[in-house]
Amino acid sequence: MSDGDPAVVLLSGGLDSATCLAIALAEGFAPHAISFQYGQRHCYELDRAKKIAGQMGAVSHRVVEIDLAQFGGSALTDETIQVPKSESVDDLGDGIPVTYVPARNTVFLSLALAFAETISSRDLFIGVNALDYSGYPDCRPEFVSAYEAMANLATKDSVNRSRKLTIHTPLIHLSKAQIIARGMELGVDYGATLSCYDPGEGGRPCGKCDACLLRAKGFNENGCPDPALTEFNS
Amino acid sequence: MSDGDPAVVLLSGGLDSATCLAIALAEGFAPHAISFQYGQRHCYELDRAKKIAGQMGAVSHRVVEIDLAQFGGSALTDETIQVPKSESVDDLGDGIPVTYVPARNTVFLSLALAFAETISSRDLFIGVNALDYSGYPDCRPEFVSAYEAMANLATKDSVNRSRKLTIHTPLIHLSKAQIIARGMELGVDYGATLSCYDPGEGGRPCGKCDACLLRAKGFNENGCPDPALTEFNS
Repeated sequence: MSDGDPAVVLLSGGLDSATCLAIALAEGFAPHAISFQYGQRHCYELDRAKKIAGQMGAVSHRVVEIDLAQFGGSALTDETIQVPKSESVDDLGDGIPVTYVPARNTVFLSLALAFAETISSRDLFIGVNALDYSGYPDCRPEFVSAYEAMANLATKDSVNRSRKLTIHTPLIHLSKAQIIARGMELGVDYGATLSCYDPGEGGRPCGKCDACLLRAKGFNENGCPDPALTEFNS
Repeated sequence: MSDGDPAVVLLSGGLDSATCLAIALAEGFAPHAISFQYGQRHCYELDRAKKIAGQMGAVSHRVVEIDLAQFGGSALTDETIQVPKSESVDDLGDGIPVTYVPARNTVFLSLALAFAETISSRDLFIGVNALDYSGYPDCRPEFVSAYEAMANLATKDSVNRSRKLTIHTPLIHLSKAQIIARGMELGVDYGATLSCYDPGEGGRPCGKCDACLLRAKGFNENGCPDPALTEFNS
């Protein structure tokens, strides 16, 4: 276990956040993972987050409950809105898809900020990515910069301490293929991760949602199979 | 009921937020009130919030549950930390008191932002006050400005719409006495509000916490009794 500075890492159970956790560890931080039960379609990803946090050696892992489904407005929290499916990554729609969850990253970062303050952490990690992504506004670099500026005015620490709070986004300018390559160098077990927006029984990826298509493209470009599919295809 | 633009008003059940709701109504907005069950010491204030929203004619009122007590770090969410008491407002301590809840306003505004987006509201009201207040960092004008800048990059609306999201802080530069004077002009029933951090049975104000002392000062300066005390003193 790292004895570095404590960091809070947002961990969804997906590919990006698992890589982000590996990077936080590689940079010498003592990472505390935080996941959210927010009313998402499925909880397979939370099981994966728990597994990943354990196998990678996070200092702690907690699941925070916050019901974003009460507000609706997203295919990920409202079963009556269908998750879009395509045959190819070239068919991904333009604009912000219906899988966008209103203010989700803002809410998640805010709860991570509250947690960070209570463990005297000044480092938050979030695996947002503005290249091979779904077009969510709260994954853009300008959003993260503005969030960081706000967070540096929000807390007791921001008044009392000289050291600035930093929101680390190590994946933000990487392609999915580059993220996977970096994670494989760091020994991330991608077989444990789940990216699919709409998995079937046991967490079987649908293969046709934006997240599945972008993930498949990333593994293809690395010339290797996705270990998370091997299990289901064997 | 107002047929103006929808606004989201943070409503705690205290004096400030009740006044803020009255101002949103007076400005012609159709206010949706949002309160938080966040693991605070007592839930009397939520009963008051419900009563106030009803009697003032909010379009809707919802209570969102988010357990900030799991993070600890505040006398308001941790029963083992005592709420400071003084005999006089002149004895209020310097610095940020232990009643500060880590990142509370950041979390509350983020959930209000999620709600606002789903009802197509571009106006949030929060009754923060940087004059007669407890010294919380997340009540300062610079915090609110930074939050507003961030929120204008966070949502689907911020990408698709031309109209900016505004965080209204109509009380921010008012003294407690001025807030009360404004609320009385607008017909706020201060007898229904509860400001105390540590009330006794039935919501009886302790009279000695920062919130009670600042409130008493405000009524004194207006030369009128606090109607919320009359009930308990009669």
